[in-house]
Amino acid sequence: MDVLTRHLEALSSDFVGYTNSDLLQTWDMSDAQLSSTVRAARLLKELHRLGLSGKIFDTGLAVSIFRDHSTRTRFSFASAVTMLGLALSELDEEKSQIAHGETVRETATMISFLTEAIGIRDDIFLGEGHTYMAEFADALQESFDAGVLPQRPTVVNLQSDRDHPTQALSDLCHVLDHFDCDVSGLRGKKLTMSWAYSPSYGKPLSVPQGVIGLFTRYGMDVTLAYPEGYTLIPEIEKLSEHQAVQSGGSFRIVHDMREAFRGADVVYPKSWAPMWVMEKRTELLRAGDKSALRELEQSCLEENRTHVDWECNESMMAETRDGTALYMHCLPADITGVSCQRGEVAAETFEKARLDTYREASFKPFVIAAMIALARFDDPQRILERIVAEKRPRTRF
Amino acid sequence: MDVLTRHLEALSSDFVGYTNSDLLQTWDMSDAQLSSTVRAARLLKELHRLGLSGKIFDTGLAVSIFRDHSTRTRFSFASAVTMLGLALSELDEEKSQIAHGETVRETATMISFLTEAIGIRDDIFLGEGHTYMAEFADALQESFDAGVLPQRPTVVNLQSDRDHPTQALSDLCHVLDHFDCDVSGLRGKKLTMSWAYSPSYGKPLSVPQGVIGLFTRYGMDVTLAYPEGYTLIPEIEKLSEHQAVQSGGSFRIVHDMREAFRGADVVYPKSWAPMWVMEKRTELLRAGDKSALRELEQSCLEENRTHVDWECNESMMAETRDGTALYMHCLPADITGVSCQRGEVAAETFEKARLDTYREASFKPFVIAAMIALARFDDPQRILERIVAEKRPRTRF
Amino acid sequence: MDVLTRHLEALSSDFVGYTNSDLLQTWDMSDAQLSSTVRAARLLKELHRLGLSGKIFDTGLAVSIFRDHSTRTRFSFASAVTMLGLALSELDEEKSQIAHGETVRETATMISFLTEAIGIRDDIFLGEGHTYMAEFADALQESFDAGVLPQRPTVVNLQSDRDHPTQALSDLCHVLDHFDCDVSGLRGKKLTMSWAYSPSYGKPLSVPQGVIGLFTRYGMDVTLAYPEGYTLIPEIEKLSEHQAVQSGGSFRIVHDMREAFRGADVVYPKSWAPMWVMEKRTELLRAGDKSALRELEQSCLEENRTHVDWECNESMMAETRDGTALYMHCLPADITGVSCQRGEVAAETFEKARLDTYREASFKPFVIAAMIALARFDDPQRILERIVAEKRPRTRF
Repeated sequence: MDVLTRHLEALSSDFVGYTNSDLLQTWDMSDAQLSSTVRAARLLKELHRLGLSGKIFDTGLAVSIFRDHSTRTRFSFASAVTMLGLALSELDEEKSQIAHGETVRETATMISFLTEAIGIRDDIFLGEGHTYMAEFADALQESFDAGVLPQRPTVVNLQSDRDHPTQALSDLCHVLDHFDCDVSGLRGKKLTMSWAYSPSYGKPLSVPQGVIGLFTRYGMDVTLAYPEGYTLIPEIEKLSEHQAVQSGGSFRIVHDMREAFRGADVVYPKSWAPMWVMEKRTELLRAGDKSALRELEQSCLEENRTHVDWECNESMMAETRDGTALYMHCLPADITGVSCQRGEVAAETFEKARLDTYREASFKPFVIAAMIALARFDDPQRILERIVAEKRPRTRF
Repeated sequence: MDVLTRHLEALSSDFVGYTNSDLLQTWDMSDAQLSSTVRAARLLKELHRLGLSGKIFDTGLAVSIFRDHSTRTRFSFASAVTMLGLALSELDEEKSQIAHGETVRETATMISFLTEAIGIRDDIFLGEGHTYMAEFADALQESFDAGVLPQRPTVVNLQSDRDHPTQALSDLCHVLDHFDCDVSGLRGKKLTMSWAYSPSYGKPLSVPQGVIGLFTRYGMDVTLAYPEGYTLIPEIEKLSEHQAVQSGGSFRIVHDMREAFRGADVVYPKSWAPMWVMEKRTELLRAGDKSALRELEQSCLEENRTHVDWECNESMMAETRDGTALYMHCLPADITGVSCQRGEVAAETFEKARLDTYREASFKPFVIAAMIALARFDDPQRILERIVAEKRPRTRF
Repeated sequence: MDVLTRHLEALSSDFVGYTNSDLLQTWDMSDAQLSSTVRAARLLKELHRLGLSGKIFDTGLAVSIFRDHSTRTRFSFASAVTMLGLALSELDEEKSQIAHGETVRETATMISFLTEAIGIRDDIFLGEGHTYMAEFADALQESFDAGVLPQRPTVVNLQSDRDHPTQALSDLCHVLDHFDCDVSGLRGKKLTMSWAYSPSYGKPLSVPQGVIGLFTRYGMDVTLAYPEGYTLIPEIEKLSEHQAVQSGGSFRIVHDMREAFRGADVVYPKSWAPMWVMEKRTELLRAGDKSALRELEQSCLEENRTHVDWECNESMMAETRDGTALYMHCLPADITGVSCQRGEVAAETFEKARLDTYREASFKPFVIAAMIALARFDDPQRILERIVAEKRPRTRF
């Protein structure tokens, strides 16, 4: 029980909940809230590893809404709510009477009469996903305030157009585990979030935005690297810079992958579409202009192809600190010679890191469970202490 | 606990279960059975509002079969069975080996070996939905009687071509809450179920039929209003008239919305397709005659358009008793200027009633839970008394 | 409790688990493992019949992956995991980011961080289903061994291209119930697995293969009957012959349905596609050659039609021992005059056996539950004894 006790003691200082709000973007939350989330997630993961139950709810419903494909996050959410003792019901919009816009608030209430948590992925249209989630949360608040809902469900952002907090916080847990430290131990470490080549187009910006928006809070030297033109949402680049300065770290943008890898402790090479492409694409999708969409895709893929050298491989890794930087990816990666001809990462490089990327992913269910616990309870620390004290096995015999 | 105790005491007189049958149409049930359902639903809702658990089952499966789109009812069923302690499995017919007709009885048994409740929505084809549910229930009974099934699952009608009992009973709960009375307090009150204009076609008849088939039992003055030709199933209009007379109330059909609203305590303006259209549509769908279907839709929409003045708006509401009748809708409503150009209800009028229509909807999960409890237990009153006495919180800490 | 005690006592001799492996093919398992599975399944079924709970897990997730349509098996799996206390999450590959091939191992781990059991149906492509499941299981083992997964989920074969063990073991349970014996009582009984005519094409080989691969282990006289050319996978025909000889029974292949039925105690008439057709079909599907696929289907259906006399009817049944052989089918059957013009079985013959085929199917949830219990626990006998001793009702009041 050593590790568990250590995790439990880590809760004792400055542990705070979300006081009935939601974590839609990490940059809307306080340092204490984020660090509490990470500590709760690591505790719950250890609890599970020991074969113990994390049931906090005796009964209740969780709902997920996926407006885009998902495996990892879908099962992370299902796992998290199951661990907490909630049943899951998925809202399939094709089987529903749902229209966009005005009825968001109606839908939000209709699925929430007995619901404790709602996970939403909405990352396809730039400018929409976060807005949808915020509207959704407001509608729940209105119905709760009016007494229509006896409980206020927690909204969990399972990836928006702006942030992917369950991913970024899992990444943070993984980095802390890797360096065996808490967030104060990250000071001065070098992290590189780099664009990488992929033969696909239209990948969301939320992962790189989530990574720079979170890791710049801890006094790290964060480098964002991409070919000219592959910018993220400027506001998020700017707030990352601001956070870096505030926290005593640094933030820079470079346009050379090799330069960005030099001396890095952590590298995160991943493809995304330039912001202007996502904007144009959203516009064309709304207009239903299929031929313009095809043209956009073609020109985008062509432009991508001029950057096939942005591949994470052994030569690139050799540039990192002692040649042994931690390789990170949210998965699935586009692996050269495996899932595509030329991709984000060389097969040899990925294979070395493969099980480690699975470990990175393994935090997500516990991050989600922690987010729900911190949002739904006034005194989450007491709840976590009691579940640990209970030491209830996951099997009944 | 005051309100809860009051609800509990309300059970004491004339409380009866369904004795192992199903509630497929309210008019097949006794007054005591319906009033017991309503009282159990209100009790369960209060239980939930107090943060208490309604788990009656320790384990077991519930199955839902949706042969039409659904949000509200889908989540109401999921919420209800979760509250009772059952796991939900949805039967998606596209992913199954199901054919129509002869194999209904086989399917019914195959999904029921460990199943406690089955919710079915089948409302598209006039003449089919209710028949399907009845066949389904008969097959379950046959397998139970033969010892193939060790328990006889309850069939819950989640909307058929004839009745929509979970909606009508939720509506009843809402009306009782609104007037703060039990069913005896409805005597003499005026309720108007009115057709309203919508730019869509083919809406089922089950909501208006369910409303007149239920509310005419309580000595109310019920008015059914529609443009000439928009009749419901004549048999159900007739039984409503008969019930009204029996219960000391009245039932009339008028063809003028304004006249129907005059002096009403409750108005329920909602679109539906004329019965003959639903019959014709069923016939053409069976024949796969797409061009005739398009023609039918066109002529139907044109006919509808001659009745755009059947809109519930401030001027119409002013006709009701003190201008303050309770506005009801099963949702989603077609709202003028919001979800369509011209619809069932003016935006201003709907907005005033909006949160109240959410309250109306909020009863459905508890009505479904009550129906299952009353159908599956020999002595449901004892069960409800014990769950209340237990006062088990919904969270474990 | 008489029957339950009898089932409990049956566990006492030679009861063994799977020691953390999976039951993908019955012929990979020992006699003791199979017989333990059957005894556990019969015990769990009796437990359920008595209204008692089979909850072994307090919390946990089960996942199902259906790469082909399914009703019976889908609900059997849902029922089984619910009985054991697990929540179910279905992996819908169309809603996922899953590609074939190299990423099987990634997917396997990504859905398993808190998962106890994974059911897979993959029966369409000859040469693929079993391979996929084996790769999946290997990937889970790798991640478990590396500490990425804190528990090693059990893989349940819900039908592959080679075996359908949950079906074959349910069939075995049913036969044992029918003759009221244990497997030693099967010695010398005659079982006929026969091809039967169906107006469809491309039915998998896994049911007949599963039946001959299992029943030849018990000293029975097993006859496999099919028209010339409708062979199963030769390796499985051969291992069946070998097992029959080893167990003191016999195995023969005949090409005449009537001859095969003569003197049989059990008949299992069912359609399947010849192996060479399944091979050709797999090849054409991979090549995306639609016109060749249509041609193959046509020629196959034509060939089938020359065997319409392979129908199980009263005249055929009269050939069996005392004319009263047990008729078996995995369902749904193609019934002459009911689900098709000419099919596998005459309406009169099927109707006599109908409820009995439902009984045959009723074992499947309990076989699956038994498989998970035997794979996931070191001492499954103790677990089963304790769940029986607990006598916990399925309802809480």
